[in-house]
Amino acid sequence: MNLLIKNVYLDGVETDIYVEGKYIKQIGKDLVVTADRVIDGTKKAVVPGFVNAHTHAAMTLFRGYGDDMPLMPWLEQKIWPNEAKMNREDVYWGAKLACLEMIKSGTTSFFDMYHKFRATADAVEEMGIRAVVSGVCFDHFEPEQAEKCKAHNLKLYSDMDVYGDRIKYAIGPHAIYTVSGELLRWIDQFSAERNVLIHLHLAETEEEVTNSVKQFGLTPVRYLYKLGILSPRLVIAHGIYVDKDEIRMLADHGVKVVHNPASNMKLASGIHFQFKEMKEAGIAVGLGTDGCSSSNNLDMIEAMKLASLLGKAWRKDPEALTAAEMLDAATEQGASILGIKAGRVKERYLADLNLIDLRIPAFTPNFNFVSNLVYAANGSCVDTVICNGKVLMENKKVPGEDEIMEQTARIAYNLMSR
Amino acid sequence: MNLLIKNVYLDGVETDIYVEGKYIKQIGKDLVVTADRVIDGTKKAVVPGFVNAHTHAAMTLFRGYGDDMPLMPWLEQKIWPNEAKMNREDVYWGAKLACLEMIKSGTTSFFDMYHKFRATADAVEEMGIRAVVSGVCFDHFEPEQAEKCKAHNLKLYSDMDVYGDRIKYAIGPHAIYTVSGELLRWIDQFSAERNVLIHLHLAETEEEVTNSVKQFGLTPVRYLYKLGILSPRLVIAHGIYVDKDEIRMLADHGVKVVHNPASNMKLASGIHFQFKEMKEAGIAVGLGTDGCSSSNNLDMIEAMKLASLLGKAWRKDPEALTAAEMLDAATEQGASILGIKAGRVKERYLADLNLIDLRIPAFTPNFNFVSNLVYAANGSCVDTVICNGKVLMENKKVPGEDEIMEQTARIAYNLMSR
Repeated sequence: MNLLIKNVYLDGVETDIYVEGKYIKQIGKDLVVTADRVIDGTKKAVVPGFVNAHTHAAMTLFRGYGDDMPLMPWLEQKIWPNEAKMNREDVYWGAKLACLEMIKSGTTSFFDMYHKFRATADAVEEMGIRAVVSGVCFDHFEPEQAEKCKAHNLKLYSDMDVYGDRIKYAIGPHAIYTVSGELLRWIDQFSAERNVLIHLHLAETEEEVTNSVKQFGLTPVRYLYKLGILSPRLVIAHGIYVDKDEIRMLADHGVKVVHNPASNMKLASGIHFQFKEMKEAGIAVGLGTDGCSSSNNLDMIEAMKLASLLGKAWRKDPEALTAAEMLDAATEQGASILGIKAGRVKERYLADLNLIDLRIPAFTPNFNFVSNLVYAANGSCVDTVICNGKVLMENKKVPGEDEIMEQTARIAYNLMSR
Repeated sequence: MNLLIKNVYLDGVETDIYVEGKYIKQIGKDLVVTADRVIDGTKKAVVPGFVNAHTHAAMTLFRGYGDDMPLMPWLEQKIWPNEAKMNREDVYWGAKLACLEMIKSGTTSFFDMYHKFRATADAVEEMGIRAVVSGVCFDHFEPEQAEKCKAHNLKLYSDMDVYGDRIKYAIGPHAIYTVSGELLRWIDQFSAERNVLIHLHLAETEEEVTNSVKQFGLTPVRYLYKLGILSPRLVIAHGIYVDKDEIRMLADHGVKVVHNPASNMKLASGIHFQFKEMKEAGIAVGLGTDGCSSSNNLDMIEAMKLASLLGKAWRKDPEALTAAEMLDAATEQGASILGIKAGRVKERYLADLNLIDLRIPAFTPNFNFVSNLVYAANGSCVDTVICNGKVLMENKKVPGEDEIMEQTARIAYNLMSR
């Protein structure tokens, strides 16, 4: 299957893009090629598909189920009792809705962490999107649980050949307050031997730091350093509470960081994410939405806008965190964190592309496309989505979207009431 | 012209809404009425049209024209030289695009401040939306300019009978650093005699406070108190830098306040807006987007989300600024500030209504409609907009929208290049 996108704006210039199989083969004006399918790019701009570098896809089921609540009562009353009831079908439909929502707002790859790995992976496989799905680990400091987690992840890893090349496996230790140091060390070893990513929540709240100092005698990053598990395979979600030396430690070990502004604001976790300092230290920083239970949607354009606005606001610096830096974080940085050759509209890169509808007020006038995308638009500006060289959405419609929404709503209501 | 909206969700219950002329006449299940037009409300929810309580409509022309810049170079290099060139036609088309953008995202009323009053008023008249348009005043502390401003506003006020009941006049002294105390006193007197609103930027930046203390020996609110111009007719935009006593002064005099979270964050003006304290003191607090040059869009759903998220974040309190409070601020509070009987879906209120499309991921599942609206959705969820009993948008399309966007883009490019 080959695709030809005609007359689309790329960096302000009209061009054609020829996609052969899953890669961008050629970019240029008036390409003379034969394609199975031609897409009219007139009055549209092409950008890389967005990379949501931290989410919990199936938590779409919990959207709006307990907002404006303090963290612990919310978890104890609303989330945990229902998560305990979730079966494979629940997770599958929750993840399917998440994939739909991501496609509709231009996300072509995501980094997931949730239980029932295969349910999420199956949804991703069917929806045509790309994901690194993490096999979750908790041992709650109990050796028996740790053994279960190890066995579970060894099995998940060995079974990965059932999935195509859009789905990769990572191991997902939840957090330092739910996973023992022994298990974290095992995970690091496991990930090094197989070259898989580690997906970890870290330094998300002040409480986590206080407890880390109390329990381990060290702040979170220093604790990981002492365990010897800082590495280029480690991706930490949040990373709000890190000091200068910890940023240096993360940079020196090639650790990646994912900023989740909506979740951090809504849960009041913290506002002082050190985007600028991390970038200056050479750390790859991506953007994520977190799960829909805490940020309520999966819109990466909103994540870019929030990250920029929040960063400018707390720094009292309107020049900080530019639109272009945000787009880079949501595309190229995210793709590099996930280890996929995407995130750029460039020959020999994966054809993970969005065509943006320029005929809306957000792009009128269009002095600065990237500014309009980040500051004026939202996910609804995405008209066409291509992932792995396949068209997943055209004219803002994904085939079968109504059925997925109806079925997932039924699943969610049933889950909460059973 | 009478309208019947059938089977629409209102506070979670399916109902019919009968609109006679410009008012909501009857709300109830299975109404037996004869209407000129029937609108199918199936799988839609009705909310009051949003009230954008502080904006500069025609600044859509400046969208994305100079972002990520410090305030003064941005004003001096980008905004002021181009504003000086603007003619009536520029403002008219800029305001038309703003009205279009507002309608498309569910705003039915707005409080404007910009030069060339009549150009904005004409655009509002034609687009079918509702507005309180402010006649701008600057004297830069020069008596000659003050006299010009007085004559200009006396004329604007006396000419208001050319406009229908959707357009009201207010007087708009820009700020305490551009308008002399003498002129502010005259404006207060003028507004008292005619019972019109005063629209003033106040306490927006730390610099403004520092300069106020330097120039007048008092902080901004205390300075207005000393001038004797705190009154229920006064609406202040921003009001970030106010202390406890100043909140008391504002409350005691019935002054209204409009919070503009996107602008305050993007320009790094300040994050500590005292929403909770103002509400507790009894102040009516509305929400605004500010102009598109500083916040880049006119989406009031985004304004609600940003206000809530920012408030929770700086307070470190996930329970603060609930979704329901934000919807109230963006509807009923805004309408009361503008002095119009709208902002509620209730019999005998103006028929300024939005039908929200529930068949999108943001409302799937729909455990809590208001949470989904504020935290998950954006302006693109608005399907149908009714203002003053007339349908302005259906199926997310406003008649003539492509022509308005094309013409306004031309006008904007022409303005910047001439």
